[in-house]
Amino acid sequence: MNLKRSKLIIDPVHGFITLRDPLIFQVLNHRFFQRLRRIKQLGLTDFVYPGAHHTRFHHAIGAMHLTQRAMDTLREKGTLISDTEYQAASVAILLHDIGHGPFSHALERTILHGVSHEYLSEILMDCLNKELDGALDLAIAIFKDQYERPFLHQLVSGQLDMDRLDYLQRDAFFTGVTEGKIGGDRIIKILCVHNDMLTAEYRGIYSIEHFLNARRMMYWQVYLHKTTVSAEQVLTQAIRRARDLVQDGLDVPATPIFKTFLSQDVALDDFYKNPELVKAFVKLDDFDIWASLKIWEDYPDKVLSMLSEMMLTRNLFRTELANEPHRLESIMAIRERLVNEGGFEEQDLDYLINSGEISNAAYISSGKGIQVLMPDGGVADIAVASDLPNIKTMTQIVKKYYLSYPKFVF
Amino acid sequence: MNLKRSKLIIDPVHGFITLRDPLIFQVLNHRFFQRLRRIKQLGLTDFVYPGAHHTRFHHAIGAMHLTQRAMDTLREKGTLISDTEYQAASVAILLHDIGHGPFSHALERTILHGVSHEYLSEILMDCLNKELDGALDLAIAIFKDQYERPFLHQLVSGQLDMDRLDYLQRDAFFTGVTEGKIGGDRIIKILCVHNDMLTAEYRGIYSIEHFLNARRMMYWQVYLHKTTVSAEQVLTQAIRRARDLVQDGLDVPATPIFKTFLSQDVALDDFYKNPELVKAFVKLDDFDIWASLKIWEDYPDKVLSMLSEMMLTRNLFRTELANEPHRLESIMAIRERLVNEGGFEEQDLDYLINSGEISNAAYISSGKGIQVLMPDGGVADIAVASDLPNIKTMTQIVKKYYLSYPKFVF
Amino acid sequence: MNLKRSKLIIDPVHGFITLRDPLIFQVLNHRFFQRLRRIKQLGLTDFVYPGAHHTRFHHAIGAMHLTQRAMDTLREKGTLISDTEYQAASVAILLHDIGHGPFSHALERTILHGVSHEYLSEILMDCLNKELDGALDLAIAIFKDQYERPFLHQLVSGQLDMDRLDYLQRDAFFTGVTEGKIGGDRIIKILCVHNDMLTAEYRGIYSIEHFLNARRMMYWQVYLHKTTVSAEQVLTQAIRRARDLVQDGLDVPATPIFKTFLSQDVALDDFYKNPELVKAFVKLDDFDIWASLKIWEDYPDKVLSMLSEMMLTRNLFRTELANEPHRLESIMAIRERLVNEGGFEEQDLDYLINSGEISNAAYISSGKGIQVLMPDGGVADIAVASDLPNIKTMTQIVKKYYLSYPKFVF
Amino acid sequence: MNLKRSKLIIDPVHGFITLRDPLIFQVLNHRFFQRLRRIKQLGLTDFVYPGAHHTRFHHAIGAMHLTQRAMDTLREKGTLISDTEYQAASVAILLHDIGHGPFSHALERTILHGVSHEYLSEILMDCLNKELDGALDLAIAIFKDQYERPFLHQLVSGQLDMDRLDYLQRDAFFTGVTEGKIGGDRIIKILCVHNDMLTAEYRGIYSIEHFLNARRMMYWQVYLHKTTVSAEQVLTQAIRRARDLVQDGLDVPATPIFKTFLSQDVALDDFYKNPELVKAFVKLDDFDIWASLKIWEDYPDKVLSMLSEMMLTRNLFRTELANEPHRLESIMAIRERLVNEGGFEEQDLDYLINSGEISNAAYISSGKGIQVLMPDGGVADIAVASDLPNIKTMTQIVKKYYLSYPKFVF
Repeated sequence: MNLKRSKLIIDPVHGFITLRDPLIFQVLNHRFFQRLRRIKQLGLTDFVYPGAHHTRFHHAIGAMHLTQRAMDTLREKGTLISDTEYQAASVAILLHDIGHGPFSHALERTILHGVSHEYLSEILMDCLNKELDGALDLAIAIFKDQYERPFLHQLVSGQLDMDRLDYLQRDAFFTGVTEGKIGGDRIIKILCVHNDMLTAEYRGIYSIEHFLNARRMMYWQVYLHKTTVSAEQVLTQAIRRARDLVQDGLDVPATPIFKTFLSQDVALDDFYKNPELVKAFVKLDDFDIWASLKIWEDYPDKVLSMLSEMMLTRNLFRTELANEPHRLESIMAIRERLVNEGGFEEQDLDYLINSGEISNAAYISSGKGIQVLMPDGGVADIAVASDLPNIKTMTQIVKKYYLSYPKFVF
Repeated sequence: MNLKRSKLIIDPVHGFITLRDPLIFQVLNHRFFQRLRRIKQLGLTDFVYPGAHHTRFHHAIGAMHLTQRAMDTLREKGTLISDTEYQAASVAILLHDIGHGPFSHALERTILHGVSHEYLSEILMDCLNKELDGALDLAIAIFKDQYERPFLHQLVSGQLDMDRLDYLQRDAFFTGVTEGKIGGDRIIKILCVHNDMLTAEYRGIYSIEHFLNARRMMYWQVYLHKTTVSAEQVLTQAIRRARDLVQDGLDVPATPIFKTFLSQDVALDDFYKNPELVKAFVKLDDFDIWASLKIWEDYPDKVLSMLSEMMLTRNLFRTELANEPHRLESIMAIRERLVNEGGFEEQDLDYLINSGEISNAAYISSGKGIQVLMPDGGVADIAVASDLPNIKTMTQIVKKYYLSYPKFVF
Repeated sequence: MNLKRSKLIIDPVHGFITLRDPLIFQVLNHRFFQRLRRIKQLGLTDFVYPGAHHTRFHHAIGAMHLTQRAMDTLREKGTLISDTEYQAASVAILLHDIGHGPFSHALERTILHGVSHEYLSEILMDCLNKELDGALDLAIAIFKDQYERPFLHQLVSGQLDMDRLDYLQRDAFFTGVTEGKIGGDRIIKILCVHNDMLTAEYRGIYSIEHFLNARRMMYWQVYLHKTTVSAEQVLTQAIRRARDLVQDGLDVPATPIFKTFLSQDVALDDFYKNPELVKAFVKLDDFDIWASLKIWEDYPDKVLSMLSEMMLTRNLFRTELANEPHRLESIMAIRERLVNEGGFEEQDLDYLINSGEISNAAYISSGKGIQVLMPDGGVADIAVASDLPNIKTMTQIVKKYYLSYPKFVF
Repeated sequence: MNLKRSKLIIDPVHGFITLRDPLIFQVLNHRFFQRLRRIKQLGLTDFVYPGAHHTRFHHAIGAMHLTQRAMDTLREKGTLISDTEYQAASVAILLHDIGHGPFSHALERTILHGVSHEYLSEILMDCLNKELDGALDLAIAIFKDQYERPFLHQLVSGQLDMDRLDYLQRDAFFTGVTEGKIGGDRIIKILCVHNDMLTAEYRGIYSIEHFLNARRMMYWQVYLHKTTVSAEQVLTQAIRRARDLVQDGLDVPATPIFKTFLSQDVALDDFYKNPELVKAFVKLDDFDIWASLKIWEDYPDKVLSMLSEMMLTRNLFRTELANEPHRLESIMAIRERLVNEGGFEEQDLDYLINSGEISNAAYISSGKGIQVLMPDGGVADIAVASDLPNIKTMTQIVKKYYLSYPKFVF
């Protein structure tokens, strides 16, 4: 017995998490992973729910814990999972979000030019794998769904994956939104493997329905809350403005690493070609963004300083949500008042007025649905297994249209 | 009925907090208060308890909520509290920590030269009061214990105040340390006023004992956790080093506002004399410190870059706790090895080796104890009221001695 | 201040409940009310969820507490509620279930001949009111919806009443079915009064949807759980058998008070005409039923002793649930086997095989829906207010058909 | 994989408990064990804490669950535990309280003449073992501490056993006494085996201190609550009175099985000699006691009917607790008033006035203390391992003296 080698992490969501595997320690202590301590899971949501400061670091560890509990359950039910597979699936989910930068939505829409965090996760995993002499080969195969036993990938990424199971519980805990609370233990207990695919026992259909419901609740009450949408618009426009000023040749101060990204347009290929860029990317975190906003507040560009001040005093855009796209006339009227009454220049308006759509599509993956192991031994989709009419309703994609603009217009 | 004017804040600790008072909205939306969103309640504790990212903003609102619940209870029991007093006590506790900067312990020991946050709170309250044309007069009187009804001050600051009642519950919630959980509702229910002093009903003595116990638990398990002590040492020395380099004439980059404080020694009087300094101080927050550490990691001073990197990768000092002061020989031996094996200069050692004491004295105020209203109508100190031997034990001050130094020594 | 007169009840569901009103103490200490300590809220549900032993006593107090919290919220929002109304509504909900006997479902289907507990509640309230010289007049008016301000009745009995709000939370707590947990505080916070009718603020529609969902979850997972249905059948048939034997002239032992009811058929009018019967009824509780089952286990009637033993060893009927009524052939086949293989008499089969339907109709009251106060000041039904398609789905009545019979058939 | 054979029990305290072992199913479904459903864990405590209706059935399953989680942890840390040992320890704790009858304290002091439940547990285990052809041999050896690996017995019964760990958490949950809540998961995680003895890791000393504290809190606030002491006195005297009347030749009605015990004095030997007595004993449960009290309420003996009515209306003895024994004069004064003012006969007074002592001795076992595995590899008692002065204080036995008598005296 070597007690020293184990480490207990206290997680207010899941209780005690025990770590024992040396490979997992290596990954955990790596600079790539430690930086997730400085990236909040829910970006700007603490503007609405002041408890929501939890980090991607905490989420990744929690999701790994749930994946291990799920594999324990599957083993108890007779599914053979080798220690190597167990370790690899653990590492795969630990790293599933490693490619996230700060405020992913805002950055992907500005300086990252649509380079997704999934893509960056793969690049960073490969880097790490090289450093660790291929120790992550199987983990990466599972992550990319290239391993022969698909249920392991499904635990990491799927309709009922441990990523979602963790973030729903974690987000509900830290926001305090009780409607998002789910019986995570129960869902894990009803998982089973059928033909190497992840399925759910029939007796668990109510828990799954509850899980889908909670997800929908969180999505409208938290992830797409009007004020969060508004704050993301303000931040996105501030970054866009700063970048545009820099690229126009102005010397806009910012933290050194953020400046690297403001002064160039980064595209997908760049990360492949330029290892320095990857190295720079993993230095970027929430602190760069906020520290730069604080500097910009005093910068002599009216739009940039105003947007930055809005962030620092939580005096955000007014945001209207509607079931139909906003009409052009309404938008034009706001533009006019911004020029006439607000004294803004025509060319600045695009930084101030934003419209677009939000939908729960991001949260309801298309692909394969949740499979249920029926009492007769067959497998059916949850929507069929349940004779309740709710499931189908819940999988509908609901779109809403936002329009945001400075408050002083009215 | 005007529903618009009320605002619900969801607090995962206390549930729903309703705000209605326009003066409270004014204070809440003020830049001084909004900045508390960017100052963590527990500084570096998330290195040990990864959920502990809650802010002073959240704590202040929670403490105000508890103060209002306590006043509701007192009113129910027949104590008259006017609406003006109710409002003033609410504002007093809302602002009780307004003078906190980022990482108070580290800053007070470096750039703030012992200027305490209590002192700064008073200065900031006065500023705010001027802006609000004296609307905070009574709140400030209560805060300074200059109002004729002492129980209101005792709710804000005392042995059984709502500050502690909030932070214990909040810290226990976000760290996940169940030993710190207390029955806050119960303690509020047993408060009463006797001769304008805050007392506790006799039937509540177990709850109070439990509260004192929980405080002690939190103090050893959280507030003075070895790793937190270690991280605070690293941060303190990094800031000291940066300041010394700046004051030696070197151009050490940092965020603009932090630089203001690195380049001058600030003392008590300075805040009085120089309103600009107050203005600067309220711009300083956690983001300045972390963003600067990130810059310093690449700065060409071995000590500063090393200390900064330690913070960013959570590779902290080794810290030893002992019941006796560490012997000089042990310290000398470490110094020698740092020079001989670590290649450090003699003059750098003071940034690397630290010793000192920690104690729960900060948490066990001297002053008056908790008063209990006895069944016979008299009042007695909790230690007397309770016939259990624990209370006295608990009020003993326990000292521990730390010694911290870089890990690579061994 | 008179501390003596207040009483704190600790409720693991709602925390501390403070009682102060002398009339409420009188009601609480009355024999009618104290007997609710001996009547479980969920009857036989502890066969499935072993924690579900909470009583109607506890529920009634909890529901009163929520009603008071709701009235506090309404007052805060400007609705005037006099102290007399406050007290009356509190008493009305405290007594809303006073007419419940033990195992209401089983008794209403046997010895009580369809006399409902609502009806008995009114009779008992009238008795109590006489004893208290009319002190309950207003409480009874509110209970019967004869008072001019309907929102008070709606708090006691309606789509969003405090009865449901308490029992859902309480049942979820004691069963451990997390899917039934709701944000009760939140629902209370969003209540408001519009034209003297209870309505919900628009911002609370998700909480209401969540509440409806949780109710549906509890209903399928708890209230109509197959094993509970089965146990209720066994109990119902045991009581029926005992009654039939008694009425056939046999001397079947039972507790004295239960015997009173076994030996006569009680109908609606009897309670009016015969005050002794009311007096007898309030002596009947769970202990009579269980103590009698224990005696019957040794009684020389094969059917009665078997059914009683089934209850005592939790060896219940096999129960099949289906979406369609069970076919006559299946039922006939079971009857045949019970006679041929089980050695039962043809005339005993009706005590052994039961079929019928269960539905959530009992939980989805028809009447008026939940009214929402819209942002434009108008009022709309929740199904209209919410643009989400779920609400309608949830109000559909789902029927299931059960068939239960002794296990040894197969 | 055979999903059918596993059974999920929902426990609101521990979450999901999975059962798989056929021997455990056999024990669980046995009549001896099922009867624990009808015996409340905390007897009459629901008079004070209305949620405290949980049963010995539920506690036994919970304690087994914790024992299994503890063995899982020990296995993870390298302690070999064979499947047979695992099963036996599980069964041992499942059966540890099997000898409890209803209201053990009251019965042991009346009809059972000091026959303890521990003794009866052994007899019932032996019975069961015979029925199961010796399948419980190892379980019984572990229970009696006759097995060569003492840590297994210590899990079942010791200073830090899973019995206490379950009942503390369960009692705190159902009473709502938050002061009794402990971090059960944490305590299990820090268990380890050293020289085949159960020890605790050093890093867990605060959790253990917290556990000891919580136990002390529960003991004063719940287990020895004045009102519970009072109710136990009333019940004890009612049973004593009924027994004395029966043994004086009167025909006092009661449930048949209770009557068996009222009409004879049962001593230790009787259970050995008379297997029928054992058979009778396992039929006795809470329902017999309460159903008989209900019958006695109308019995024409003033003392018996009065005591029974007191139980049914919760109108209990007045009870005084003091730190010194009550003086004879006070007792004599009460006796006089009972005769002169209350109209009681001299010979009845012993059923009405009771004095005695209560202490936490029952909860602080003498024997061996909690052993801690020190950082240096040695083992030390918790009182030594911890340098905090509280532990010793906590192990002091505190005695209180009660005096109880009918309220109408004053």
